[in-house]
Amino acid sequence: MTVVQDLDHITRPARAELELAAVLHALSDPVRLRIVAALAATEEQRSCGSFDLPVTKSTCTHHFKVLREAGVIAQRQQGTARLNSLRREDLDARFPGLLGSVLQAAGAPA
Amino acid sequence: MTVVQDLDHITRPARAELELAAVLHALSDPVRLRIVAALAATEEQRSCGSFDLPVTKSTCTHHFKVLREAGVIAQRQQGTARLNSLRREDLDARFPGLLGSVLQAAGAPA
Repeated sequence: MTVVQDLDHITRPARAELELAAVLHALSDPVRLRIVAALAATEEQRSCGSFDLPVTKSTCTHHFKVLREAGVIAQRQQGTARLNSLRREDLDARFPGLLGSVLQAAGAPA
Repeated sequence: MTVVQDLDHITRPARAELELAAVLHALSDPVRLRIVAALAATEEQRSCGSFDLPVTKSTCTHHFKVLREAGVIAQRQQGTARLNSLRREDLDARFPGLLGSVLQAAGAPA
């Protein structure tokens, strides 16, 4: 798999490498859906700890890893904080309408 | 989970019981995406054996079970054949736009 690497970003699949099955799998968990809905609701990059989730820190870290490896989110290291953002443009370009319909189904503003 | 039962149909979740995470999980596999795309392309009910899939019969049976339990397909027993159909109306009612965007992303006509 091709990965994009730069100094600021943690490796992730490039837009053209996003795979539908992997993205759907990443979205197929209630906690990860909550994370994605929360990221969709803001323009800010949010740290892992800023999400109020009913799981342990290590489980939370795992969920963010699944989302990043599937290409749903980008993570950026800033000092000791890992900042997360939704890869909305990449997802919309590769899979038009998918993210919006998932967010709508999850009860979040699309 | 509430199930709909009648003489002709194998038990499945009712429309109102369809869960987004379960549907996304059912769709998050390349073989299951092929099955769904094939069912979306026809009005006919198709038997499990009519799909040309690169998996064993037992794996195929498993994939159909996952799809049925998530509410993506309905299965109907007719003699010795188990006939499958896409629950398009139920999916479109519960999760507007989702199935269409997934089929489009999978390269199938939505």
